[in-house]
Amino acid sequence: MYYIGIDLGGTNVAAGIVNEKGEILAKTSAPTPKDGAEAVIDVMCSVSEKLLKDMKLSSLDIAGLGAGCPGIVDNNDGVIRHLSNLGMTGVNLRKELSERLGIKKISIENDANCAAMAEYKFYGNNSKSFIFITLGTGVGGGIILDSKVYSGFNGAGSEIGHLIIEGDGLECSCGCKGCWEQYASVTALCNFTKEAILKNPDSLMNKWVEENGEVNGRCAFDCAKKGDKAAKQVVDLYIKYIGVGITSIINVFQPQKIVIGGGISKEGDYLLNPLKEQVYSCKYNNYVEKCSLEIAKLFNDAGIIGAAFCAM
Amino acid sequence: MYYIGIDLGGTNVAAGIVNEKGEILAKTSAPTPKDGAEAVIDVMCSVSEKLLKDMKLSSLDIAGLGAGCPGIVDNNDGVIRHLSNLGMTGVNLRKELSERLGIKKISIENDANCAAMAEYKFYGNNSKSFIFITLGTGVGGGIILDSKVYSGFNGAGSEIGHLIIEGDGLECSCGCKGCWEQYASVTALCNFTKEAILKNPDSLMNKWVEENGEVNGRCAFDCAKKGDKAAKQVVDLYIKYIGVGITSIINVFQPQKIVIGGGISKEGDYLLNPLKEQVYSCKYNNYVEKCSLEIAKLFNDAGIIGAAFCAM
Repeated sequence: MYYIGIDLGGTNVAAGIVNEKGEILAKTSAPTPKDGAEAVIDVMCSVSEKLLKDMKLSSLDIAGLGAGCPGIVDNNDGVIRHLSNLGMTGVNLRKELSERLGIKKISIENDANCAAMAEYKFYGNNSKSFIFITLGTGVGGGIILDSKVYSGFNGAGSEIGHLIIEGDGLECSCGCKGCWEQYASVTALCNFTKEAILKNPDSLMNKWVEENGEVNGRCAFDCAKKGDKAAKQVVDLYIKYIGVGITSIINVFQPQKIVIGGGISKEGDYLLNPLKEQVYSCKYNNYVEKCSLEIAKLFNDAGIIGAAFCAM
Repeated sequence: MYYIGIDLGGTNVAAGIVNEKGEILAKTSAPTPKDGAEAVIDVMCSVSEKLLKDMKLSSLDIAGLGAGCPGIVDNNDGVIRHLSNLGMTGVNLRKELSERLGIKKISIENDANCAAMAEYKFYGNNSKSFIFITLGTGVGGGIILDSKVYSGFNGAGSEIGHLIIEGDGLECSCGCKGCWEQYASVTALCNFTKEAILKNPDSLMNKWVEENGEVNGRCAFDCAKKGDKAAKQVVDLYIKYIGVGITSIINVFQPQKIVIGGGISKEGDYLLNPLKEQVYSCKYNNYVEKCSLEIAKLFNDAGIIGAAFCAM
């Protein structure tokens, strides 16, 4: 059986032909147009048609197509509820793709849900409940319950970056204050790093920035590992904030497995070990089997594979 | 079909014979013993046997028995993971009740989950996702997804009172800081009220306490409604804290319906209207059908009825 997985990103539309094992058999991509929904749908169709041609397949050979999109999407009716920066708000993407490509089974999911599904299928060990957290420019998440994406009755759920962790905290783009995203994203880490650099002119982080051009998510981690005290403080604070959100998630979901992805997850055990210590210290974990906390294993292709899995 | 529902509380063991519509046909209760698991199980059995006798039934007439217990319980194996104040930690309550009463189908659930199930069955309108929040001495919750209790892979989930809403906030009994329960429970409201009374000797709240004997959850609400400024500030702050937690719950779950129960819910629209204003201001709600926010309708018997529903 062949499936198409499309990962609609802000920069590129990546797509692949995927088999039922989640193996990518062919892959292509094209820049994401910035001039409205029709142009984006054109590209989604053209990459799909290119893949069919490359593999000498027709749309009749495709058992299902999955599209992972940023923003709020509702797989109940296939409509994109909010994706304003690509001009896609209100578009019935399922209908458009189905009519244009002649493929009946089309799944439209949030991109973090797709990544979650890919991690789940490969490394989830059939967990009854599985949560994927991505720490990137923002904080996103995907919730898989009983092998299915959970995204609420209206498709807008699993916005775990908008758990409020500081009631009167930093302003968030969602209109609330103190959302987890404002403390646990790479953007937040960079802000904490910049503040610490200004306050600590002797910190190794200053030299690091001179050598590397600009502050990014690695700066504080790299310097902390070299023993820099100010950098260690930044990393400790950042990890503490991550842990606060994960503790909330565990207390509410007690998922069998939580997997952390996104750029910061490359820090591996340096991130994971203090996080485990923090989140397992909540006493509820003393009485029950503990939720397993792990680093994500799939990276670049998770979007394509997960989108295809969602269509299976 | 007849079911038995048992509501194991800290003060009383209440039980009823319930039909498949959730109607209570007979009801009884007895004080909860404080001298260990065996005594508690004895009482759970004796109230059940009394009901059978009253209704002229035998255990063979009972299609299922549900027991709602405080603490952490795991309906997967029927074991109470943590209920130390009744000496029940580690007890396989399903096995004990089944052997003693000769009833095969026995459901063991957390009491908040039972209350959630009762509200859901009567007023949930078959919502795909339904969350019950109880604002009492603590803050508890029950999550119903696809008509079933969701409590995580280990039975310890839906502890929504332990969503962390202030990362470095008030100490909680769970070992963390800033749990929602420390801000949104009636206990928290009483603490805020007491602080405000000390700071505002001219507030109506002082007179209210003189007349009513002690601070309780009604003091600030009653005085705020009479125009007392300090009381209004307490109520506004308290409702804000409730809203912070509900906003997090909506962003993660987007449940079709949230129902607020517990003593404070009797404030009705005075509580509900400002809460709605606050939680719907998060911009995600602008693009999708909004989660409905309501006041619970069942009170005293929800525990018995819900426990019975969990066994159906």
